[in-house]
Amino acid sequence: MLREECGIFGIFGHPRAAEITYLGLHALQHRGEESSGIAAGDGKSLRLHTGLGQVTEVFRDHSLLEPLAGHLAIGHNRYSTTGGDSLCNAQPFLAECRDCYVALAHNGNLVNTVPLRRRMQQSGALFQTTTDSEVLVHLIARSQEEQVEDRIIDALSQAKGAYALVIATQDSLMAARDPLGFRPLCLGQLGDSWVVASESCALDMVSARYLRDVEPGEVVVIDRGGLRSLKPWPKTQHAFCVFEFIYFSRPDSIIFGDNVDKTRRRLGKLLAAEHPARADIVISVPDSSNTAALGYAEASGIRFEIGLIRNHYVGRTFIKPSQQVRDFEARTKYNPVRGVLKGKRVVVVEDSIVRGTTFKHIARMLREAGAAEIHVRVSAPPIISPCYYGIDFQTRDELIASQKTVEQIKEHLEVDSLGYLSMGGMLQAMPDDGAEYCTACFNAQYPVQIEETLGKAVLEHS
Amino acid sequence: MLREECGIFGIFGHPRAAEITYLGLHALQHRGEESSGIAAGDGKSLRLHTGLGQVTEVFRDHSLLEPLAGHLAIGHNRYSTTGGDSLCNAQPFLAECRDCYVALAHNGNLVNTVPLRRRMQQSGALFQTTTDSEVLVHLIARSQEEQVEDRIIDALSQAKGAYALVIATQDSLMAARDPLGFRPLCLGQLGDSWVVASESCALDMVSARYLRDVEPGEVVVIDRGGLRSLKPWPKTQHAFCVFEFIYFSRPDSIIFGDNVDKTRRRLGKLLAAEHPARADIVISVPDSSNTAALGYAEASGIRFEIGLIRNHYVGRTFIKPSQQVRDFEARTKYNPVRGVLKGKRVVVVEDSIVRGTTFKHIARMLREAGAAEIHVRVSAPPIISPCYYGIDFQTRDELIASQKTVEQIKEHLEVDSLGYLSMGGMLQAMPDDGAEYCTACFNAQYPVQIEETLGKAVLEHS
Amino acid sequence: MLREECGIFGIFGHPRAAEITYLGLHALQHRGEESSGIAAGDGKSLRLHTGLGQVTEVFRDHSLLEPLAGHLAIGHNRYSTTGGDSLCNAQPFLAECRDCYVALAHNGNLVNTVPLRRRMQQSGALFQTTTDSEVLVHLIARSQEEQVEDRIIDALSQAKGAYALVIATQDSLMAARDPLGFRPLCLGQLGDSWVVASESCALDMVSARYLRDVEPGEVVVIDRGGLRSLKPWPKTQHAFCVFEFIYFSRPDSIIFGDNVDKTRRRLGKLLAAEHPARADIVISVPDSSNTAALGYAEASGIRFEIGLIRNHYVGRTFIKPSQQVRDFEARTKYNPVRGVLKGKRVVVVEDSIVRGTTFKHIARMLREAGAAEIHVRVSAPPIISPCYYGIDFQTRDELIASQKTVEQIKEHLEVDSLGYLSMGGMLQAMPDDGAEYCTACFNAQYPVQIEETLGKAVLEHS
Amino acid sequence: MLREECGIFGIFGHPRAAEITYLGLHALQHRGEESSGIAAGDGKSLRLHTGLGQVTEVFRDHSLLEPLAGHLAIGHNRYSTTGGDSLCNAQPFLAECRDCYVALAHNGNLVNTVPLRRRMQQSGALFQTTTDSEVLVHLIARSQEEQVEDRIIDALSQAKGAYALVIATQDSLMAARDPLGFRPLCLGQLGDSWVVASESCALDMVSARYLRDVEPGEVVVIDRGGLRSLKPWPKTQHAFCVFEFIYFSRPDSIIFGDNVDKTRRRLGKLLAAEHPARADIVISVPDSSNTAALGYAEASGIRFEIGLIRNHYVGRTFIKPSQQVRDFEARTKYNPVRGVLKGKRVVVVEDSIVRGTTFKHIARMLREAGAAEIHVRVSAPPIISPCYYGIDFQTRDELIASQKTVEQIKEHLEVDSLGYLSMGGMLQAMPDDGAEYCTACFNAQYPVQIEETLGKAVLEHS
Repeated sequence: MLREECGIFGIFGHPRAAEITYLGLHALQHRGEESSGIAAGDGKSLRLHTGLGQVTEVFRDHSLLEPLAGHLAIGHNRYSTTGGDSLCNAQPFLAECRDCYVALAHNGNLVNTVPLRRRMQQSGALFQTTTDSEVLVHLIARSQEEQVEDRIIDALSQAKGAYALVIATQDSLMAARDPLGFRPLCLGQLGDSWVVASESCALDMVSARYLRDVEPGEVVVIDRGGLRSLKPWPKTQHAFCVFEFIYFSRPDSIIFGDNVDKTRRRLGKLLAAEHPARADIVISVPDSSNTAALGYAEASGIRFEIGLIRNHYVGRTFIKPSQQVRDFEARTKYNPVRGVLKGKRVVVVEDSIVRGTTFKHIARMLREAGAAEIHVRVSAPPIISPCYYGIDFQTRDELIASQKTVEQIKEHLEVDSLGYLSMGGMLQAMPDDGAEYCTACFNAQYPVQIEETLGKAVLEHS
Repeated sequence: MLREECGIFGIFGHPRAAEITYLGLHALQHRGEESSGIAAGDGKSLRLHTGLGQVTEVFRDHSLLEPLAGHLAIGHNRYSTTGGDSLCNAQPFLAECRDCYVALAHNGNLVNTVPLRRRMQQSGALFQTTTDSEVLVHLIARSQEEQVEDRIIDALSQAKGAYALVIATQDSLMAARDPLGFRPLCLGQLGDSWVVASESCALDMVSARYLRDVEPGEVVVIDRGGLRSLKPWPKTQHAFCVFEFIYFSRPDSIIFGDNVDKTRRRLGKLLAAEHPARADIVISVPDSSNTAALGYAEASGIRFEIGLIRNHYVGRTFIKPSQQVRDFEARTKYNPVRGVLKGKRVVVVEDSIVRGTTFKHIARMLREAGAAEIHVRVSAPPIISPCYYGIDFQTRDELIASQKTVEQIKEHLEVDSLGYLSMGGMLQAMPDDGAEYCTACFNAQYPVQIEETLGKAVLEHS
Repeated sequence: MLREECGIFGIFGHPRAAEITYLGLHALQHRGEESSGIAAGDGKSLRLHTGLGQVTEVFRDHSLLEPLAGHLAIGHNRYSTTGGDSLCNAQPFLAECRDCYVALAHNGNLVNTVPLRRRMQQSGALFQTTTDSEVLVHLIARSQEEQVEDRIIDALSQAKGAYALVIATQDSLMAARDPLGFRPLCLGQLGDSWVVASESCALDMVSARYLRDVEPGEVVVIDRGGLRSLKPWPKTQHAFCVFEFIYFSRPDSIIFGDNVDKTRRRLGKLLAAEHPARADIVISVPDSSNTAALGYAEASGIRFEIGLIRNHYVGRTFIKPSQQVRDFEARTKYNPVRGVLKGKRVVVVEDSIVRGTTFKHIARMLREAGAAEIHVRVSAPPIISPCYYGIDFQTRDELIASQKTVEQIKEHLEVDSLGYLSMGGMLQAMPDDGAEYCTACFNAQYPVQIEETLGKAVLEHS
Repeated sequence: MLREECGIFGIFGHPRAAEITYLGLHALQHRGEESSGIAAGDGKSLRLHTGLGQVTEVFRDHSLLEPLAGHLAIGHNRYSTTGGDSLCNAQPFLAECRDCYVALAHNGNLVNTVPLRRRMQQSGALFQTTTDSEVLVHLIARSQEEQVEDRIIDALSQAKGAYALVIATQDSLMAARDPLGFRPLCLGQLGDSWVVASESCALDMVSARYLRDVEPGEVVVIDRGGLRSLKPWPKTQHAFCVFEFIYFSRPDSIIFGDNVDKTRRRLGKLLAAEHPARADIVISVPDSSNTAALGYAEASGIRFEIGLIRNHYVGRTFIKPSQQVRDFEARTKYNPVRGVLKGKRVVVVEDSIVRGTTFKHIARMLREAGAAEIHVRVSAPPIISPCYYGIDFQTRDELIASQKTVEQIKEHLEVDSLGYLSMGGMLQAMPDDGAEYCTACFNAQYPVQIEETLGKAVLEHS
């Protein structure tokens, strides 16, 4: 239901660094399909290829990877949070500084981009994109520090908000996470190579061994001298994105040090405890709520069934639902299994309801396929407030739970019952009882204050 | 693991017949992704558009549907069984006969194509493709009968083998199934329009109501005068394709008058009875064996889990597994969920093992993700013989079960145990105890004798 | 101003026959840019690739030529005269007959296509395109003769109208011209290989030696046994297309046994004698009337100048003239040279005026560039009647000279004087005093009577 | 034979400024086909679209022009002199400065790019391309002046070398030429709109009236207040590029205040006087030497003929000459007219011989087409030294005249005689007797000293 912005990947010390990065980005495709790109360095130069679309589209034949020679590479899958949709905004962002080349790929969202841009423009800086990445590279280029790593620390000291970064020069790889650690980033090893990735599933894809998270507030520097860990800022309370566990990350990943799958199962079990249902079967909205649904089934003793099948051929269908067929968009995404649903009282476990539009279609499809009763169970609290740290939520007005009560939502969806997991339940399911998690989208308590944001602007004067 | 050749769809009496056909083909996409096409008639003319790829690629914008005006249309998704891969072989096949235009779309495989072609070539017929469809249209064009429907009966009387057909002229729609009824075809209604489709899921997609199967040996003729059912041939023993239930059809479909989902569940339950396992969890190879796995879990009492996730971004990756990463192809298709698998004794339910290559990769991935034991259970008997009626099995030599014993296959796959459902069990799971099913791929008893086949030849002299 | 339909090429006995054909088609590109195709045979098979666009677009990389292996090939550049614009109508046309494959490429236009199609459809023939080529291949396939060459003679005996043909089977190449010889076709040698081409410029391109024309009514058969010339029909009066000399063929070609360039020069000289002008300079409308203009200048003693430059970047501009700029289309084609034209009395030599639209723009551009007087001299008589033998003239109504007198045309074009070469003058410029030329477009005397024509129909029932 | 780098165009005060720019760029296509782009402003924003290829390819349908709304626009056709070939280097270059947007398009070549880049990088400037344009925009952005025009003057005061510029902000248009005036730039009016263009042929295309040159050292500022002319630098000796007259500019253009066509004709006449020939005909290498050849013919009294025809279908042919056919590349460019050449003593007038490769092919083709003698006459002196001001000459080693004497070149080309126009003759043909022209490529006397140049580097560290 939701889309996260970006997946990032980096590797140092592999003779075919760009190819490994390609594979890693493939495993992170769910984090962004809008554009993809890889920058690779060979000690002397840094080369870049980016394009619109999925990584297999951008690198549609091997010849596009060949120029990206070298032992280090970084890559990026983008789903636009800030910045427009054009190729110009595709990442990694590559530029020439006074004595080196710098490529940077960013997952997250800064909250002081506008004042930073304005300040640098005053002294002559040029901006060609509207990405946070360009702002960060400008900060790096302007630092008076001698060492690149010190320039990066200098730059990051001025940035506020959420960032997980991979940065390449022609002969080094750096990775960093903001002190609150909003977005995930982990570290692994593949033979003698070092690998960093948004999620561990990308390490699995390339057969790398998971080591640990890049820690909040840590800057990892990797070059021919090996790996150094810098922690330039005082330790602070963390604010891990709880939504990564609930929805974004792949269930086979480890993030924030814990298994996504196990956490989702706990969400489902606690949901069953908080909101039992008198029903015949439990179904999921595949694939994101599969694990929570299994947890719900296990805890409730109600049989898990596959009542909806996700269509593998979604593609882009140009025929609009209104034109011919009711609920068309949902129909092209999901196929209800009549034989499973007919005459049954059905618990549908969903991970989140944002605008309510898609789910309304799903509910109607289930009803038409013969479901006798529909009991919706959501494995998270109602979303009432936008995210400023990298998740592409709509504005507050579009969030159904900011406009309607649970009872009203139930009526809107035309279902028989509706239950959301409580905040307490959700946190209880998180590792460490959710002590250090950002829950701003559920309760509007923002760990970092928002300064101005650029929004989705084209490069035009306002 | 297997691919079936084609999906067909037809509609008569709808002002936007081509658009409805587009939607119906979308629902039948799993039956063939190689090419797609629609022919539409408006009483005076018959127009065609075909292309390589999925239906959303072939009709990538609405302007491509617009010329296909008219109240009747037929469509085809193709996976090549006979004929080469080129655009020339895309269907429907359209030609001008002496007094009308004829478009035809075919699912199945004739067994006397070669003698039919040879005979017609003797008297001057030209062949521009290697499809059965062209042969059938030639037979129709050469018939001396006055009425188109009689010509079609005349033509089909000469064709042997498996066919489910939709045929359009500029002002009529016909549908036919061979007397043994190998391939499925059903009839539905959408308001005042008549709809035919390979599977009922296409009726669901367009909100049409399922009426009944087009019967084996039936020719349905639909025109402004309404629908007529012709049964020109004596009734005979049927030979429904058992593989449609086991693997091909979508689980939310009704075929041969019965729910696919329910049949698969019975396969899974009987499999559990025949081949129990001492295990902690049951998993499927998503999505095709999901239902059988649920049936196995239910009957065995072992917990169903999601241990493999199907990747939604398979696409075409050009980097070959050997180059960088072991089991790469399987890795891009499936993600093993380590948290679910680790230390567990796992039953993996699969619907079929053809060559064994892919499954070997899956088994290794499961092992590397921590599975303690792997018990493979296949919801059908071993495949030992090719299909000549429309399923794209490899030659006998490539079928692992025609070369190895079950014990040898187990060793080849490097798993802890392997059990196939028995022939008796499989038939018991089918509607009507499998009395009228073709099981040639399991026991080499072919209901219709094979004459020469064209195979995958390009249009070149041998 | 006019476009001819097609260029054809064939070669036998060269190890890279398809590549040579590609080069030959490149030299014949001016005869058709709509589609291009090559069929190649290796003794056993015959393979085809066709596409929309120029030959360098259709074979945009070498991999598209590679499958076309073999020692013989034929090729075709198409500008549609009959048939629609789709890929289906691209030539060569390839089909399988009873004992061989046949590929055929055609330049010209039959006049009895409709009755031939109708007759064959009565006995079951299928038509998939609307080309004359398909009709011819059907006739060949239906012939009961034993030898392919006899079947071809049999087929051509039934065809009326204009044809220059190259025909390939998997192991032979044939070339034929209709008995009146409307369209050009010549024969050459490249080492041990035989080459046929619409114009000799294609022989020059591949460094082949020009031998002679394929004669009107001749069928040339080339196979491993060498070349045989068959002349199955009684000799008749010829009807060479005079327009090939006036406009279509490349000036560096030999056609109908004579130099195009020299003939055009004679046209220009005779034009000067018939229609002198009191002027300062002579200019051409490049490039087609260059030679005639030089002839006019030489005979008149008036200085030849380059007053219009042909733009090499015509391309397809989507902005219509009316929208922004007057005479836009002409402006993108030709640049008037102000310094040459300013204050001058200008003779503009043009080869033909069909609708008058383009020339009206040119005249206005010349005036705006400063020409004091504009005297138009046309190196052919007024075109008053359509061509049914392969030239894409508009219908009679669109031909300005069938609607207006010379004086009225002069006024329409807003020029100071206008003179057309007389019929007698034109024929005098032709080889052999024009004794055996078709002049139907100038005097409506058609050497072969027109039966029904298909016109530009799509494959739809009328 | 040579390629110049760029064509630029700008317009202010037209409701459809981008469309007019599109047309203007079409007329300037000969100045660069590698990439094309347009930036348009509407008072508030500045929008850009660029792409690889000719302007009709980059703006292949009207929808690509539509977002470029506004009353002012600038455009650029690029042939790479500095910078690599990628889309990143396409112009105009657009960036956001502290209080406005700036787009800039550049024709020419700076000679102090490297030190300027280095200096700005020291203080934190980022470079994303290797174009001079980016350097210039950085200089503008860093200027502390209040008014944009003062910032531009500030920036240009630091730039050395050749530049003709159009610059747009969201509400103003500026044009500038370096004080020596290497590259042409002219000013015109279209109704109430102001237009600037590299050559007057672009004014003609859009029906604008030619007013005058933008003068060397002039900065023209156009906004709602009208047009102001600034001349911030002391007047200096000019250095107009003599090659614009000899080869680059379109013959129908006015540049440096004079007709290109008339100048070329004078070159041809003087060439005839310096290097007469005993010959039958004079031919040109179309189209660039047409006018000089006419001048030669007129002065010598030898008849002008069209002995070579330029092929309109050059395209990109992937088959290399060596593979099949000798002189293939020349053959696809030019068709020799055998009937004109056969047995004749031929004077071939050419404008320049750079490496000699192409001309050697041409000479051989002429010989094979029957020319009895070949007398080459070049309408400029031998090119012995590279250009650093914007013309894409090869390095000195590749210039045949820097390596060989005239006699040796004659032998290399295998022709009967060879004559170059003298330096004196060339200057005599220029307006004002060539008093203020750059002739560095002929005598290595460079008017502005070269500092480091970037060359064709990708963005990589050396």
